[in-house]
Amino acid sequence: MFVRNAWYVAATQNEVVDQLLARTILNEPIVLFKNGQGEICALEDRCCHRGAPLSLGNATETGIRCGYHGMEFNREGACVAIPGQTTIPKRAKVKSYPVVSQGDYIWIWMGPAELADPAAIVNYPPDDHVNWPRAHDMLYLKASYVMVLENLMDLSHLSYLHKNSIGSSEDDSANAKMDVQRTPGGMKFLRVMRNADAPANWLKRYPTGKKIDRWADFEYVAPSTVLQFSGGVNAGEYDAGVRSGGHLIRTLHTVTPETEKSCFYFFNKADGYAKFEDPGKPRTWASTTDVFKEDAFMLEQQQLRLENFDTSQLLDINTDVARVQMIRALKERLRQEQESLQA
Amino acid sequence: MFVRNAWYVAATQNEVVDQLLARTILNEPIVLFKNGQGEICALEDRCCHRGAPLSLGNATETGIRCGYHGMEFNREGACVAIPGQTTIPKRAKVKSYPVVSQGDYIWIWMGPAELADPAAIVNYPPDDHVNWPRAHDMLYLKASYVMVLENLMDLSHLSYLHKNSIGSSEDDSANAKMDVQRTPGGMKFLRVMRNADAPANWLKRYPTGKKIDRWADFEYVAPSTVLQFSGGVNAGEYDAGVRSGGHLIRTLHTVTPETEKSCFYFFNKADGYAKFEDPGKPRTWASTTDVFKEDAFMLEQQQLRLENFDTSQLLDINTDVARVQMIRALKERLRQEQESLQA
Amino acid sequence: MFVRNAWYVAATQNEVVDQLLARTILNEPIVLFKNGQGEICALEDRCCHRGAPLSLGNATETGIRCGYHGMEFNREGACVAIPGQTTIPKRAKVKSYPVVSQGDYIWIWMGPAELADPAAIVNYPPDDHVNWPRAHDMLYLKASYVMVLENLMDLSHLSYLHKNSIGSSEDDSANAKMDVQRTPGGMKFLRVMRNADAPANWLKRYPTGKKIDRWADFEYVAPSTVLQFSGGVNAGEYDAGVRSGGHLIRTLHTVTPETEKSCFYFFNKADGYAKFEDPGKPRTWASTTDVFKEDAFMLEQQQLRLENFDTSQLLDINTDVARVQMIRALKERLRQEQESLQA
Repeated sequence: MFVRNAWYVAATQNEVVDQLLARTILNEPIVLFKNGQGEICALEDRCCHRGAPLSLGNATETGIRCGYHGMEFNREGACVAIPGQTTIPKRAKVKSYPVVSQGDYIWIWMGPAELADPAAIVNYPPDDHVNWPRAHDMLYLKASYVMVLENLMDLSHLSYLHKNSIGSSEDDSANAKMDVQRTPGGMKFLRVMRNADAPANWLKRYPTGKKIDRWADFEYVAPSTVLQFSGGVNAGEYDAGVRSGGHLIRTLHTVTPETEKSCFYFFNKADGYAKFEDPGKPRTWASTTDVFKEDAFMLEQQQLRLENFDTSQLLDINTDVARVQMIRALKERLRQEQESLQA
Repeated sequence: MFVRNAWYVAATQNEVVDQLLARTILNEPIVLFKNGQGEICALEDRCCHRGAPLSLGNATETGIRCGYHGMEFNREGACVAIPGQTTIPKRAKVKSYPVVSQGDYIWIWMGPAELADPAAIVNYPPDDHVNWPRAHDMLYLKASYVMVLENLMDLSHLSYLHKNSIGSSEDDSANAKMDVQRTPGGMKFLRVMRNADAPANWLKRYPTGKKIDRWADFEYVAPSTVLQFSGGVNAGEYDAGVRSGGHLIRTLHTVTPETEKSCFYFFNKADGYAKFEDPGKPRTWASTTDVFKEDAFMLEQQQLRLENFDTSQLLDINTDVARVQMIRALKERLRQEQESLQA
Repeated sequence: MFVRNAWYVAATQNEVVDQLLARTILNEPIVLFKNGQGEICALEDRCCHRGAPLSLGNATETGIRCGYHGMEFNREGACVAIPGQTTIPKRAKVKSYPVVSQGDYIWIWMGPAELADPAAIVNYPPDDHVNWPRAHDMLYLKASYVMVLENLMDLSHLSYLHKNSIGSSEDDSANAKMDVQRTPGGMKFLRVMRNADAPANWLKRYPTGKKIDRWADFEYVAPSTVLQFSGGVNAGEYDAGVRSGGHLIRTLHTVTPETEKSCFYFFNKADGYAKFEDPGKPRTWASTTDVFKEDAFMLEQQQLRLENFDTSQLLDINTDVARVQMIRALKERLRQEQESLQA
C-alpha cells in the first residue's frame, strides 16, 4: 500500500523535453510529455479504446494522440477526437494526474486532484548558482522505496558500506550523538561527531584541520522525501555555531515507488563549499552517484534476502533510533490517509 | 481457453526439412519432424518414459527415437521398441496429432483425430506463380493471438500505426465505408475508400493516378485465420467493377496460439500486380514484414498494459464494428465446442 | 521437501579460499567463508539486523562482520559486537551450520547440529595420487537434484545420450545384466556387459582388446550421493576376478539442491588406469565435464517438459529397475525423518 496524497518526483525536467516518457509510478502506467503549448502533462499510459500505450503516440497542441487508432485526449484526459465519428461518449477518457514543474523536477500528485496543493512541494536545496551550485542524478533500484529511506536514517552505515569514500572511522561513528524528534510532517534527526577524523577524501578539498566536528541534519518528510544539511568544520567550531568554511552540503533525496519492490531514487546535491574553490575548475558530482551505487547494490541484495522472510524476526539496535521513528511516521501517514478515505 | 477442433498452422514447410522442430501450441509441447519415409509427423514432445523431449532424439524410418533411453515411437505415437525388453505395454505411447501439408504450411489438428477433416483447411492465397506469386514470413509475438486478429479487424489503424508506409490519409480513413456480415464460419467485412489519396509508396510502383478507390475485403474464419483481398484502382473504377490494373494483394493471416499470452503470426502474401512488373526484377516482400513488426511492437506493449486490467472498462468506437463481430463469432465457436463436449 | 539430516557438499575447498561465497542450499541463503583463524564457517547469509547479506561484509578473526552497519558474528552465529552499543541482546544471532572439510569438499549439515556426525561423510574416491589421481568439477543445473540421481541409475542412457563418447553399443546395452540390492543407507546395483565392444574413445588409451567385459558398480547413499566403481577389462577376465589392467574409474557423484528445481552437481573422478600411462603426460578430465554437459542439457529440458505435468502418467520400463529402488530408498529416508520429527 502506498501513500497517494503526496507529491512524488515523476521525472527530471530533462527527461521530458521532446520525448514521451513512459513510467510506472505506484504500479500505474503513466505517460509524461509536453503538449504543443509547452505544458507538462501526465496521463494514464493506456488508451481507453484498446489499451494501447499512449506513449507510443504523439503529442498534439493540447494533449496526445494514440498511435494505434488515433483517438485524441487533452491534458485533462478527456477524449477530444475519435477518427470516423463525431459523437464522443462521456466515458471516453483516461486518467490524468496533476503535475507541477519545480526545481529540477516534474512532481506528480497521485491522489484526488482536488487535494493537490503545489505549496506542499519542498523547494530544496536552494537554487543559488554561486553559493549552492547543484547537480542531480537518479538510480533505478530493484528494491522497496522504504529501504532507500531507511538507509538514510541510519548513518552508521557510512563507516562500513562507504568506508573507502565518505565514511568516518568506526570509533567516531560509534560515538556519534543522535537527537531525534517527530515533526508534523514526519521526523528529523541531528547526528554530531565531535573531534572526529576528517575522511581522507575530504582533506583533499576542504580547508579544515584533520580533526573536525561533523554533523548531519536530516528531515524526513513523509512519505518519501529526505532533506539533508550536513558538513564538517574545524573541531570545536560546531558548538560555537560555525556552519561555514568547511565541507557543507544540502541534498534532497526523494524516492518514487515504481512497484512494491522497485523504485526511482532521485538525489539532488548542492555544494556549499563551492564558493571557496576556484569557480573556473570543472565540477562534477559523479562521485556522489558512485557512492550511492554502493547503497543501491546493497539494498537490492537486501531485498532479495527478505523475500518470503518474516521480517518481524529482524532486530532493532541503538543506531536504529531514527529509522524506527521514520517508519512510525510513514505508517501514521498511511493510517491517516486510509481513515480519511473511509470517512 | 482455446478452440481445439480446428486446423492451426504448426510450421512452415521449410521449418521441418531435416530438423526436429520443438514448438508449443495451445500450451502443449509438440515435436514436428519427417520420418524416414518422408511423412510429416507431430507428436507430444515428452517421452512417456521419463518426460524427456523427443525433439532431442532422432527421426527413424517410421517415427522417432528418444535421445535419452532409446524408446521408439511410430507416427501414431505408439511405442514400437523399448531397448532391453521385448514386451511393450499398451500404455507406452505419446499423443499424436493429425497433420496435413498444404500450401506453404504444415497444418495441425488440435482436437480429437476423428473430427479432423483436411477439406476444412483454407487454400489461400492462390498458388499461381505468374499472376499471384507469393511469399511468406512469421513473427513470434508476446501477445494474445486474439489481439493479432483484432488488429486486422480495425483497419483505421493503418493511418496511424503505418502512416509512413501503407496507411491512407486520416481523412480518407475516417470516410471509409464499412459493410460487415456474419458468415457460417465467422464473419467478413468490406471496407472501401472512394476517391482517396494513393499512399506514397504505392505511387512508386502501381500504374494508377494519385486518386484511387481503395478496398479491403476481409474474411475471418474462426478461430484464427483471416483471408484478405485488397487493392486500389483508379478513382471511379471500383464501382464499375474493375479489380485489376492497380495494386492487388491476397494475404492469408493465420495466428497460432503458443500460450494465452504468446503466438506465432504467419502471413502469406500474393502479389496480383506482379504481372505488369518486369518479371526479371528481383522481388522481395521484406517490407511487409517491416510493416507487421510495427504491429508486433504495438501489440506486445498493449498486452503489457492490459495485464491485471479490467478490460470491460475499454470503450468500443465506430471503427470497431468488424472487431466486435469477430469477437462474437470467436466466442460462439468456443461455446459450440464446449457444448458439444458436454453432450 | 528435502532430507535435512544429511551432509551435503556445500562447495569445493577452492571455492572458499579468500572469498566469501554466497550459496543457496535447500532454499536457505548461506555464506561460506574462512575466519581469521582459518576455520571454515557457514552462516545464514542474512544479517539479523536489517537482512543484509553477510557475504557482502568481511571475515574477522573469529567470524564475519556485516558490510552494512557493522554487526559482528562468531562462527556459531552469535553476535559479538554491535557498533555504538555495549549490550548485545540474546536474540542477536544468525543461524549457523556444521561444516566439515573432507576430500576436496566442504560438507554442510542441514539438520539440527546435535545430530551431525562427521563419520557419516563418505570418503570417496580414494586420495591416492599415484594409483588414483583425481579431479573434480561442478555443473549448476536448472533441474531437480532427483533427476540427476535418476540419470545415474539408468545407464542405458549412455548408448543414446553419450553414443559418441562413452556409450556402449545399443545391443550391448540391451544385453547388460543388472543386479540390484537395497542397503541400509540406500541401494546399490551392479551392471555387467560381457564380451561387449569397447567404446571408440577407450581403445585409444586402454590396453584392452576390442572386446571387453564392462561393469558399473554403483552405490546410492541417500539422499544425494552416488559412489561409482566401473571399468572394462579384456573379455572373459571379469568373471575371473580381474579388476585391473584396463579402464578403471571411481567417481563420487553428489548433488546439492539449491531449490526444488535447481541444484549443484559435483563430480569427482579418480582414474585407476593412470598408473600404466606416462606420469609426465599432462592429464585432463575436461572430457568428463563435456559428457556430463550432455546430461545437464537433457535434464534441464526434461524439467521443463514435466512442469505442470502429472508425472504419475510416466511409464517405468525394465531398465528402470535400479531407479525405482533408488526413489523408494529416498522416499523412505524422507518418511523416517518426518516421523522422527513428530516423535
